[in-house]
Amino acid sequence: MSATADHVIKCRAAVAWEAGKPLVIEEVEVAPPQAHEVRLKILFTALCHTDVYFWEAKGQTPLFPRIFGHEAGGIVESVGEGVTELQPGDHVLPVFTGECGECRHCKSEESNMCDLLRINTDRGAMISDGNTRFSKNGQPIYHFVGTSTFSEYTVVHAGCVAKINPAAPLDKVCILSCGICTGLGATLNVAKPKKGSSVAIFGLGAVGLAAAEGARIAGAARIIGVDLNTSRFEQAKKFGVNEFVNPKDHDKPVQEVIAEMTGGGVDRSVECTGSIQAMISAFECVHDGWGVAVLVGVPNKDDAFKTNPVNFLNERTLKGTFYGNYKPRTDLPSVVEKYMNKELELEKFITHSVPFSEINKAFDYMLNGQSIRCIIRMED
Amino acid sequence: MSATADHVIKCRAAVAWEAGKPLVIEEVEVAPPQAHEVRLKILFTALCHTDVYFWEAKGQTPLFPRIFGHEAGGIVESVGEGVTELQPGDHVLPVFTGECGECRHCKSEESNMCDLLRINTDRGAMISDGNTRFSKNGQPIYHFVGTSTFSEYTVVHAGCVAKINPAAPLDKVCILSCGICTGLGATLNVAKPKKGSSVAIFGLGAVGLAAAEGARIAGAARIIGVDLNTSRFEQAKKFGVNEFVNPKDHDKPVQEVIAEMTGGGVDRSVECTGSIQAMISAFECVHDGWGVAVLVGVPNKDDAFKTNPVNFLNERTLKGTFYGNYKPRTDLPSVVEKYMNKELELEKFITHSVPFSEINKAFDYMLNGQSIRCIIRMED
Repeated sequence: MSATADHVIKCRAAVAWEAGKPLVIEEVEVAPPQAHEVRLKILFTALCHTDVYFWEAKGQTPLFPRIFGHEAGGIVESVGEGVTELQPGDHVLPVFTGECGECRHCKSEESNMCDLLRINTDRGAMISDGNTRFSKNGQPIYHFVGTSTFSEYTVVHAGCVAKINPAAPLDKVCILSCGICTGLGATLNVAKPKKGSSVAIFGLGAVGLAAAEGARIAGAARIIGVDLNTSRFEQAKKFGVNEFVNPKDHDKPVQEVIAEMTGGGVDRSVECTGSIQAMISAFECVHDGWGVAVLVGVPNKDDAFKTNPVNFLNERTLKGTFYGNYKPRTDLPSVVEKYMNKELELEKFITHSVPFSEINKAFDYMLNGQSIRCIIRMED
Repeated sequence: MSATADHVIKCRAAVAWEAGKPLVIEEVEVAPPQAHEVRLKILFTALCHTDVYFWEAKGQTPLFPRIFGHEAGGIVESVGEGVTELQPGDHVLPVFTGECGECRHCKSEESNMCDLLRINTDRGAMISDGNTRFSKNGQPIYHFVGTSTFSEYTVVHAGCVAKINPAAPLDKVCILSCGICTGLGATLNVAKPKKGSSVAIFGLGAVGLAAAEGARIAGAARIIGVDLNTSRFEQAKKFGVNEFVNPKDHDKPVQEVIAEMTGGGVDRSVECTGSIQAMISAFECVHDGWGVAVLVGVPNKDDAFKTNPVNFLNERTLKGTFYGNYKPRTDLPSVVEKYMNKELELEKFITHSVPFSEINKAFDYMLNGQSIRCIIRMED
């Protein structure tokens, strides 16, 4: 039992007071974990596009003041009532979506979309009592996707916490909490390319590069990167991408360009942009008879996916995935091991690193398109 | 070597001289098989909707005179040069699509869409020389999908002929040449429902009933039949369908009705109507996290499949299939064995039987919606 257990902890957190305004490092109060919750000491966190999207609050109801952050690594400080699988000192990754272990999804081998702890971007409080665990001078500060890792301490539902190998460096494996697993799992768990096969990756941001990394690990021979931004191509080579298509360079649809490059289509494709046109292209560029396309990117609310149904009848498959089909508690420990045994290379995703006090720089790096991932060091 | 080998055979065939006009039993000449072809004596054939569709010739370029027919069982009469896997006397099922064994599709474990012998409904002649093997008084008579089984003798590419157990009754297993395998394989090979799961079948015609038979064989607990024609429901019970929905009885989309019946959606669905609206419903009625929908029915040329891409991102899968993903030569023998060991029940599909001289009655039974399958006995 730690000395702080059962006590309110005062610590530093980066608070977003208003949409799109720089975060402010504040001293906040973090209440003890309630039943089925754990309080974590965050050591490293990273910035993901989803944080920026909800911080900008252009597409949804704003909820402020709020503590963002959902890619992180830390250590359990204390546990609430009923928590049996975690204890103080455990090295963990908090995850924005959970695994209750009891619902039909958790009991299905195929799904990771837990009924109880599935991501909820609108909720700003804990599910047990609808209250926040963060406050400043009595004013509640909202949570974000159940993680709020831009704080030295945070409270998370125990079902959203993956216990990992304590030997794993948290400043590296913290990026497995979201984007990297999303892309990696889309390829390894859903598209499942065979050794020697061809894979097209739409979008060469962090998620797309992680999808490419999955294709490289699977032994794909041709990894075709598709992006509207040619400046991303050089960097993508490190992730196994060995052919490139910029749709702007062609006067025909990119699916036709890819079909010509590959004698009828790629074996697999993974869509990581969220653009509806890219989704359609990613589906239509896979080979008939066996092609599988996987959608990862999140579309705009009113987008419609549209294709000639004969594309399906010619034995193409279209699937979507959420968090790379990884069940957070069950599967993350093995992804960490993939890094530990050097199968998965995480260093190349980490382009920047800043002390917590300079967290707003991480936002700048992402908004300028400079970073893949920027690690934020909480203890500096 | 049979006495007729290398000779032109004169025999009876049911010739379609004009679109939509009754077939006429004529004496025709059937040339010997050329290289990689075989000549078959047809013993039993059945009528399928596809014959009727091309006989009516409402939606495509008419090609007449033509000999229809593509579900049949027969015996090899003689073989052309280079045919090594078949010999006179073999019991066989001719199939409208083939398996060359050499192309990328044939070499793929996943595809049955042979590049060389894939179905071609426009072609009216043999692929080797572009000529017909049928004629009457010197006038060529066109083939249909490479099979033309409404003739006592026909010539077929050897890659479109499945050699089967000679003990199998050809008057039953002849219906495996098309519709029954299409539905059965859609469920068993593509949707792959687990024991105890729920399956929705859209369309309770022959193909849909075969899809239901597949669900029954797989041990599905709930088999929900969806059809606009309530009169089909009673018969469907024999095929394992144990719940029914007529979309006309509801003022909400059928996918919502099914989601309510099943606590969020069925585990699998199989679409056997070809209606674009049914395709969309069949996809949207499967459960998030693990649901798989399989498209079988052939849509109209200009139809567009349209759905919210979030339906995919919530881990639903949409696939299409052609001939139930069966490779004709490789896989049909084992389907025949499923019938021989009483796992697959074919008798219940056979509602009518007529002698060859009354073949036009088979068209009437189908057009009136009376028959599932009508067997045409060539030797009567």
